Amino acid sequence: MKKLGLSILFAAICISRSWAGDEPPTIESNKALIDLVQSHADYVWTLVAAALVFFMQAGFAMVETGFTRAKNAINIMMKNLMDFSLGSLVYWAIGFGLMFGATSTGWFGTSGFFLSDFEVGGDPWVLAFWMFQVVFCATAATIVSGAMAERTKFSGYLIYSAVVSAIIYPIFGSWAWGSLFKGEGWLEGLGFIDFAGSTVVHSVGGWAALAGAVVLGPRMGKYTKDGRIKPILGHNMPLAALGVFILWLGWFGFNPGSTTAANKDIAMIFVNTNLAAAAGTFLAMITSWAKFGKPEVGMSLNGALAGLVAITAGCANVTPQSAIIIGAAAGIIVVLAVLFFDKIKVDDPVGAISVHGVCGAWGTLAAGIFNIGGTSAKIIGVQLLGISACFLWVFPVAFLVFKLIDKTIGLRVSPEEEMEGLDLAEHGGNAYPDFEVSSYGGIGSAGGPGSPSAAGDPIGQFKPAQQT
Amino acid sequence: MKKLGLSILFAAICISRSWAGDEPPTIESNKALIDLVQSHADYVWTLVAAALVFFMQAGFAMVETGFTRAKNAINIMMKNLMDFSLGSLVYWAIGFGLMFGATSTGWFGTSGFFLSDFEVGGDPWVLAFWMFQVVFCATAATIVSGAMAERTKFSGYLIYSAVVSAIIYPIFGSWAWGSLFKGEGWLEGLGFIDFAGSTVVHSVGGWAALAGAVVLGPRMGKYTKDGRIKPILGHNMPLAALGVFILWLGWFGFNPGSTTAANKDIAMIFVNTNLAAAAGTFLAMITSWAKFGKPEVGMSLNGALAGLVAITAGCANVTPQSAIIIGAAAGIIVVLAVLFFDKIKVDDPVGAISVHGVCGAWGTLAAGIFNIGGTSAKIIGVQLLGISACFLWVFPVAFLVFKLIDKTIGLRVSPEEEMEGLDLAEHGGNAYPDFEVSSYGGIGSAGGPGSPSAAGDPIGQFKPAQQT
Amino acid sequence: MKKLGLSILFAAICISRSWAGDEPPTIESNKALIDLVQSHADYVWTLVAAALVFFMQAGFAMVETGFTRAKNAINIMMKNLMDFSLGSLVYWAIGFGLMFGATSTGWFGTSGFFLSDFEVGGDPWVLAFWMFQVVFCATAATIVSGAMAERTKFSGYLIYSAVVSAIIYPIFGSWAWGSLFKGEGWLEGLGFIDFAGSTVVHSVGGWAALAGAVVLGPRMGKYTKDGRIKPILGHNMPLAALGVFILWLGWFGFNPGSTTAANKDIAMIFVNTNLAAAAGTFLAMITSWAKFGKPEVGMSLNGALAGLVAITAGCANVTPQSAIIIGAAAGIIVVLAVLFFDKIKVDDPVGAISVHGVCGAWGTLAAGIFNIGGTSAKIIGVQLLGISACFLWVFPVAFLVFKLIDKTIGLRVSPEEEMEGLDLAEHGGNAYPDFEVSSYGGIGSAGGPGSPSAAGDPIGQFKPAQQT
Repeated sequence: MKKLGLSILFAAICISRSWAGDEPPTIESNKALIDLVQSHADYVWTLVAAALVFFMQAGFAMVETGFTRAKNAINIMMKNLMDFSLGSLVYWAIGFGLMFGATSTGWFGTSGFFLSDFEVGGDPWVLAFWMFQVVFCATAATIVSGAMAERTKFSGYLIYSAVVSAIIYPIFGSWAWGSLFKGEGWLEGLGFIDFAGSTVVHSVGGWAALAGAVVLGPRMGKYTKDGRIKPILGHNMPLAALGVFILWLGWFGFNPGSTTAANKDIAMIFVNTNLAAAAGTFLAMITSWAKFGKPEVGMSLNGALAGLVAITAGCANVTPQSAIIIGAAAGIIVVLAVLFFDKIKVDDPVGAISVHGVCGAWGTLAAGIFNIGGTSAKIIGVQLLGISACFLWVFPVAFLVFKLIDKTIGLRVSPEEEMEGLDLAEHGGNAYPDFEVSSYGGIGSAGGPGSPSAAGDPIGQFKPAQQT
Repeated sequence: MKKLGLSILFAAICISRSWAGDEPPTIESNKALIDLVQSHADYVWTLVAAALVFFMQAGFAMVETGFTRAKNAINIMMKNLMDFSLGSLVYWAIGFGLMFGATSTGWFGTSGFFLSDFEVGGDPWVLAFWMFQVVFCATAATIVSGAMAERTKFSGYLIYSAVVSAIIYPIFGSWAWGSLFKGEGWLEGLGFIDFAGSTVVHSVGGWAALAGAVVLGPRMGKYTKDGRIKPILGHNMPLAALGVFILWLGWFGFNPGSTTAANKDIAMIFVNTNLAAAAGTFLAMITSWAKFGKPEVGMSLNGALAGLVAITAGCANVTPQSAIIIGAAAGIIVVLAVLFFDKIKVDDPVGAISVHGVCGAWGTLAAGIFNIGGTSAKIIGVQLLGISACFLWVFPVAFLVFKLIDKTIGLRVSPEEEMEGLDLAEHGGNAYPDFEVSSYGGIGSAGGPGSPSAAGDPIGQFKPAQQT
Repeated sequence: MKKLGLSILFAAICISRSWAGDEPPTIESNKALIDLVQSHADYVWTLVAAALVFFMQAGFAMVETGFTRAKNAINIMMKNLMDFSLGSLVYWAIGFGLMFGATSTGWFGTSGFFLSDFEVGGDPWVLAFWMFQVVFCATAATIVSGAMAERTKFSGYLIYSAVVSAIIYPIFGSWAWGSLFKGEGWLEGLGFIDFAGSTVVHSVGGWAALAGAVVLGPRMGKYTKDGRIKPILGHNMPLAALGVFILWLGWFGFNPGSTTAANKDIAMIFVNTNLAAAAGTFLAMITSWAKFGKPEVGMSLNGALAGLVAITAGCANVTPQSAIIIGAAAGIIVVLAVLFFDKIKVDDPVGAISVHGVCGAWGTLAAGIFNIGGTSAKIIGVQLLGISACFLWVFPVAFLVFKLIDKTIGLRVSPEEEMEGLDLAEHGGNAYPDFEVSSYGGIGSAGGPGSPSAAGDPIGQFKPAQQT
């Protein structure tokens, strides 16, 4: 199938339908071919970046499970798997069209649903662009799950995850980034700066997470009647750290990939992304050391994410020095924000609201303050408007959605199920049946290896209900 | 060494031996340079994709160990490490020549062994192409190990792994994809559609896995005399889920990288790959919910892989809508296939035969049915011929190889070793000596930290035999 | 924001300030545009490679924690996180200027600190290049931590990590690779071959690790008074294996990315990197089998790293056959070296000195021996000079730094803290509070889920001191 030598170059050339391989080259045909080769590089870069952003799903899954208890590990894997799977399908059907479809109002798009116009014979760039955007959508969706971990009903999760991916995220996205085709979003029209989504992706996820955590209420035992806060420790710090490293890697697709073009701008974006993350990590570690007397791992890991979230808006329009300042501030802010939300009894098991909501807002403001081309009251005003618009759109709508789910099929598991763990209650298995796990009722409480079972899934973790 | 400015462009230019930097450019020299720049992009894309596919080895390792017991975790790491290491060496020596060497018969290649013709002064594209192909070969080899987990002798594993990489996989590959140099495979000549290897890679691995599972027989205690099926639970669901995320990522190299060219085709391949995986995950989850009453994690994870395997053949020649249908069907099929193989007492600890063998066949058929350019009885016929040829080549030959190993050095460990776990029996250590593991004989049964030892490996897990 | 169609090509074109989109193309303008497109590919490749090398931090973290005890897992995550974070900041401030700044002496650079000259309006290539180099610097720094695991004070670690990244690594680097701007290093001037850093990165890390291990002394209980060597087993082999797979992946950025240009040379570098790793893995496995009677996992994993380290110097100037020989030898050498260092009572928990120091030296020598353009006594002499210069610079300086830290703030934790584990002593938490861990004092000894706490970090693992 694949012959050597000329065939390689030929393949590249033949892709260009505007240039016939047998005719002698002209200045104009060369120019068209150069444009084609550049566009090939744009495809490769945008799609490689999309692959890196996709991998962030694994990072979120590892962070979230690492920061929570062993008895809920399967549930967290299922949620991460499903927000991406279901999210991909609804973003294909609805979300992408709402976000990037042609718009005359600037408030939402009205074309491009089901990728229907572009499939056969259409511009393949739409497909590349969709691929890059679907992984962004999934990022916003998965942020929410962290704040709602360890107590949310799986069926309720599926519904709100679909709503976030189909409507809440795309609508705000269309204000700031739409459209791919015709028209522009009203925030974009005002000059709102959010290059890669501190607000569009992270604050959207963060404020939806806040709504979810408020509607759900705290996990059992987290806040005692006499006003004390009990720490509920995460069960696997190496996995959480691996998750953060994966997220940091993925952000090298998230931020520089947002150029959706292979050009020199990506260099500064890489450097800014890395320096902000480094400063965020270091400062969060120092802040935790000052606050608690010891350098704490959970805060340090969240510091990395805080720096990354904060630089996302301004990564293409601030200097590396500014990136360090933005990231360092985020590293301090995230520690204070986590303590604040705990003080007001908003139980966010992984710190998602602080990392994505608060630091997303900070980063968006900072993109205006440290703008490489200069700042102004107007720029700051637009940034504040965008930040506020995001909160005012996302929080109430998400709150309503969560309330609706709560009143109908239910948003929270029963106290018994929460005690038992969502893995067994919701998914019929345990994540670690070979190990002695304190939150289980003994080794292999869900039926260790070799326990008898008349039926059921021969592979996964499933144990028929009567066995457990 | 690396100077700024012009040196970068200069380096690129000087690589072109056909263009002298000091002469004024002409239309023709520009044209040659454009071709060169395009070919550079092809190298970068193909090799980045190869790196992503390589990473699938980590994914398979995590999935396989997650789905099996803690007492066999070292063994699974060793097998995954060795099928890639030994596989790379034998594919370099033998496999690549058999698969992509020049062929006059269309049944196997006869040149290119040891990369001998191409090394110095040869076309470097052969090396890039080899790199992309060796990671495919290793994928086929590692699939087999999953179905044979928890009971296979390590020395026997090394032998059959080498045979798969050197002979079984390359021979079939030459029929469908050969050659790189001169001539073409007989299946390719008939118009067989398998763009990235649903059959060539996945079914080959799956049918060899079936042969292995049949020759080995089930794990002890899996099927009781009174006809019941006992679930043997996997020991680490977060690792299994991480493995699936890694595999999904790697598939963004596997499928679009199979263009081996940086062009616009990769956009649709990315989208199709993602949508099929999403649909497979979601439908397998729904199917498990319907079958077992709860959404099950092992099935959902295998659903993702089923969707990915199924879209591999047709990723470049079906529409995104078709990709969703293909993936969704695979998500249902994989659940039914897993139950079927368990019913007929073929013990496949991770579901490899169902995922790779069955869904590989489905995907290959589907590539004919949903072919973007239209389908026909002839197309379907060729697809069915390719699917059948794969089974008829792989299953009997692999069966014979396994039988030969079984009769000579032995393919299966003793019952005592199987009980004790392959980690201790075959590799002299335990994967988790700090933890209480139910399948061990107590904490640190292999000698926890601090147990005395007169000699042996000071780093790894090795414990001298007399200590254990 | 992002419109379809022409806008993509337009963006690419407009980046070129030397070419005005509205004028008709000329041969010269086409030539300038071709150069621009090639340079875009160079940016993409170099930065994608940098992302892969960044991910090696996760690999090192997983290998190091897998090979050590559960009670020190948080500490190892914190060290890996901080050597990259703090290292990025000091390399930005000091290291990069010392390594790649303009040099008149050939002994160190004197410009480029704080990236100050290049930020606004400067050449963005400096930023791309910095990004690629900072991840190399972090690799050297993190190697050290492995050899000093399980007993080093965290504050002392932060200091020496900063010194390695700011001074020790950059100074040697400037001899072999400097400068980016003006002048060249004295070793480079002699023709020293170290394409991607067997000596510059790995031996630097390895010899600093040796100094650290010597100054620290062995872990408690490792060597008994009657001369026996006690194995101290690592706590998680799947994580260690995952780490090695991640490192192998990262090396596909490390070695071919060192071209810092998208060209055909990367093909052979990929192939050589892979074959050397494969041979190293296989031979280390065989060697461990011969030595211990069983194929051992720790040695096999280190064999992969040994092969990778060894091919790093010569990856661009040896044939694939030679790469196999170089890697195979490294696989044998690393097993013997690990046993040697243990015999002389240098306690290196992960084998970092053997893998990076010894195999780095071997690989650098081998790059001279197997040089594709022929070898000579002069070439070998220069290679030996470089190897020696590295040891003579790094070991004494690192030794002095460690001694200084030891005499001031202290380099080693107290025996009580070492017994208890660094996680609790230094970071106030445990990595696995849900599990029964033998090196803890019972389940959740640091306060399992639900234990009361009046204050402290609500997310991470932190437990106030009075609670533990």
